[in-house]
Amino acid sequence: MKPIETTTRDWIIEQSAILFNTKGYFACSLSDIMQATHLQKGGIYNYFRNKEEIALAAFDYAFQLVMRRFRSQLDQATSCWEKLNIIIDQLASMAFDPVIAGGCPIFNVSVEAPRLDPALMEKAKHGMQMLTRYIELKLEEGALHGEFTCQKPYREIASVIVGNLEGANIVARTLQDPDRLHWAVDHTREYLKLNCLRINF
Amino acid sequence: MKPIETTTRDWIIEQSAILFNTKGYFACSLSDIMQATHLQKGGIYNYFRNKEEIALAAFDYAFQLVMRRFRSQLDQATSCWEKLNIIIDQLASMAFDPVIAGGCPIFNVSVEAPRLDPALMEKAKHGMQMLTRYIELKLEEGALHGEFTCQKPYREIASVIVGNLEGANIVARTLQDPDRLHWAVDHTREYLKLNCLRINF
Repeated sequence: MKPIETTTRDWIIEQSAILFNTKGYFACSLSDIMQATHLQKGGIYNYFRNKEEIALAAFDYAFQLVMRRFRSQLDQATSCWEKLNIIIDQLASMAFDPVIAGGCPIFNVSVEAPRLDPALMEKAKHGMQMLTRYIELKLEEGALHGEFTCQKPYREIASVIVGNLEGANIVARTLQDPDRLHWAVDHTREYLKLNCLRINF
Repeated sequence: MKPIETTTRDWIIEQSAILFNTKGYFACSLSDIMQATHLQKGGIYNYFRNKEEIALAAFDYAFQLVMRRFRSQLDQATSCWEKLNIIIDQLASMAFDPVIAGGCPIFNVSVEAPRLDPALMEKAKHGMQMLTRYIELKLEEGALHGEFTCQKPYREIASVIVGNLEGANIVARTLQDPDRLHWAVDHTREYLKLNCLRINF
């Protein structure tokens, strides 16, 4: 049921975001969206021209959910070191405690990206860039604050952190074995310790 | 054009394997398969009952291609240490020099797995298990031969290696930046060195 205070456009976006993130862009049909929203085709086409337009808006919405969860967790930390460790936990949590059904939307769209329309592919790229860039900033900030010294370029450390955890998400999900994710978290924490040498600790 | 010595069944499998691996299971339609094979619907349904049956056979075929490439590279190595390093290179090569267009088929099917029919989901799980299990065996064998001593359980090391490189494949592909993959290879080699301490070297 659509809550009274939600606009129809937002309602379509929210329901479609869940569908796209669980079924994937290709497997999600207009009929699926009609069924989930309890709207007729015309009711949906009042707001969006086609499935791609819905998918673009749905990705923006899902991306905001991820960012909001990240921010609410990160706000509780004071040091960059803590923030980096929270990011590791948050990336891992996307598999078994996702902000939106189906796992990490940035990752799900990235995986489908080479098969998607250019606009959606750009969204995936942009989402991945935002994620890695945020980690780079925390690394640089921590180094500037004198919390730690980085042994490798920020871009390289950030890329490895994201890759390790996104890959572990897939391995854990495919083998239906959450241990795989815990091992990746331990391993990525160790990697961070080895490559960001903490000062005065 | 179908080569003369290829059976029609094999021809359908080979062409479909490329389609499924590039477009994904859902986006690949029977019309795509008809177009790629130059066959009519009836010509395809002589050999397969439905799209799922083609997809299952296509996955087996693509999986064999991966295994064949692994084996041909691994046969050139004598020590388990060398073999483990070759596996790292091979997993990384799936993004930019794949055995079949579209990247690593085990990974591509795994990513779609939660959305697929149970039989295809089982295939993905089985493929991932074979891959991680093979690494575990080489770790155990190397330890038995006295090449190195492992600092962590074989399952954990194998899982981290696969996760790191599969994740890096996605990050590199999404950002269209091969460096991401090279960093993951360096990082995973370092991880191996830290967790499999070589003896007499």
